[in-house]
Amino acid sequence: MFGLLPKDEAFFDLFDRMAGTVHEGALLLSAMLGDFTEVEEKAKQIRNVEHSGDHLTREAIEKLNRTFITPFEREEIHELVCRMDDILDSMENAANRLSLYRIDKPTPDAIALGKVLVNCTELLRQAVPMLRQIKKPQEMLNLCLAVHKEESEGDRIEQHGLAGLFERRQDPIEIIKWKDIYSDLEQATDRCADVANVIESIVLRHA
Amino acid sequence: MFGLLPKDEAFFDLFDRMAGTVHEGALLLSAMLGDFTEVEEKAKQIRNVEHSGDHLTREAIEKLNRTFITPFEREEIHELVCRMDDILDSMENAANRLSLYRIDKPTPDAIALGKVLVNCTELLRQAVPMLRQIKKPQEMLNLCLAVHKEESEGDRIEQHGLAGLFERRQDPIEIIKWKDIYSDLEQATDRCADVANVIESIVLRHA
Amino acid sequence: MFGLLPKDEAFFDLFDRMAGTVHEGALLLSAMLGDFTEVEEKAKQIRNVEHSGDHLTREAIEKLNRTFITPFEREEIHELVCRMDDILDSMENAANRLSLYRIDKPTPDAIALGKVLVNCTELLRQAVPMLRQIKKPQEMLNLCLAVHKEESEGDRIEQHGLAGLFERRQDPIEIIKWKDIYSDLEQATDRCADVANVIESIVLRHA
Repeated sequence: MFGLLPKDEAFFDLFDRMAGTVHEGALLLSAMLGDFTEVEEKAKQIRNVEHSGDHLTREAIEKLNRTFITPFEREEIHELVCRMDDILDSMENAANRLSLYRIDKPTPDAIALGKVLVNCTELLRQAVPMLRQIKKPQEMLNLCLAVHKEESEGDRIEQHGLAGLFERRQDPIEIIKWKDIYSDLEQATDRCADVANVIESIVLRHA
Repeated sequence: MFGLLPKDEAFFDLFDRMAGTVHEGALLLSAMLGDFTEVEEKAKQIRNVEHSGDHLTREAIEKLNRTFITPFEREEIHELVCRMDDILDSMENAANRLSLYRIDKPTPDAIALGKVLVNCTELLRQAVPMLRQIKKPQEMLNLCLAVHKEESEGDRIEQHGLAGLFERRQDPIEIIKWKDIYSDLEQATDRCADVANVIESIVLRHA
Repeated sequence: MFGLLPKDEAFFDLFDRMAGTVHEGALLLSAMLGDFTEVEEKAKQIRNVEHSGDHLTREAIEKLNRTFITPFEREEIHELVCRMDDILDSMENAANRLSLYRIDKPTPDAIALGKVLVNCTELLRQAVPMLRQIKKPQEMLNLCLAVHKEESEGDRIEQHGLAGLFERRQDPIEIIKWKDIYSDLEQATDRCADVANVIESIVLRHA
């Protein structure tokens, strides 16, 4: 059933483009954290990537509403696309906040969270095209498992960052700023794990 | 199929009453922000409106669970009602916080967010009754688009407010308070955009 | 239909074990708040309970994906299990934060919220096994109503706690810490109310 019908291709192409857009956003955010110059300009680029994601999401949902036979259940497609869009939203929030909060210099924990996001979204970018023909279910489940491991690493880094904020008795305004930024970055990894869950569920049902 | 069966009317009446309740909440919240006196009394009025919304939501869900043939898919009705209820929850949070946090005087950005909420909920109040017979799909989609534009304006205002908090080097407790209140108000506009998404989806499927 | 098929038993057993795990987590968290010693060790125990919950959730979802005929609709089972898992997540967040934020001594409001969580999860632990054969729908709905009442009490306590933080003009870092911990605890009671909603919905559809 998979890949046989030409009309399905358009859905899979949209998924691929969305996964690529998500990974592009993560690369830009990680680069911004690593080289914290021209911050407003870099935040704007990330906002543009997020807007591209919005258009792809809207295109997929409209297509879904107009298509009678879909390659997976409607709800699975809806979830897959909306959860990828959520990753972009969290990354945009992080980028905006880094600019709005007039951050001086990213902490090592924030830079590490940016790298975790690059890893998560690279794994998703590999897994999503394999939805076309679920020939290698175990390989796909392994990619999802790797996303969950990265997400746990993200949790660990956020907790390390938070502990650092409250250990050193420091400026409350710095605590406010970094707590929010760590939270945005960690939420982006949570959203990656949500996408991995959707992929797992599709694989288990359709393999 | 729409509007032909008398039993459907009861659902549409519930939707209309819910949209009216949401708009009433927005008007009260905006009035409270504009004239910041008798704050506890005004917060209580908004809590009462939120409770009315809870009763309508519960009534709709019970009706949904007992009705075999529904005017739209069950999930669409469930989403429509629950997302309208979410708008009321966010507005109640904002009102409670304005009272609990012993705010002295609303900022211009908070007052502007209150007006955005009035605009969003007025647009929804116009769109919801048009679900009865989807005769003018384009007009409905235009109302939804206008909600999304208001929501973007809400984002812009929140970001302006946040930047202001961190620009002026000020009292961390003031930052804590306003960050939360801006967030509640902006979340209420996000929930309006969620309702607009549900309406769009119903229009695209059933027009 | 309920309880007749042996394969259903496995689902109900999973639900019961999950409800028991959630209650165990609440007991540990409340005990930790009541006797605030060996905090890191106690937080670790709660993390372990949360991991058991993750395994049960995953087991239930995999079973759901592989089972053709389920005792309730798939979505109801999915919601029931995922919302119970969310309770554990919120409780784990609270426990972690109590440890990470280097809290000195829980406030009376935090201790009271811990007791509300014990009450909520005890009510759910009683209601969940009654899903097997919905013979006493009114009794089940009463248990759910009692959860909603506890959740309102949780709201009231959180608001009392927040008002206290901002009344006494105090250390902004203390405000930051307690606002987050109250929020985690109150969110756990909200998630209990979500589970009560799922149970109500199942009862109304299947009784």
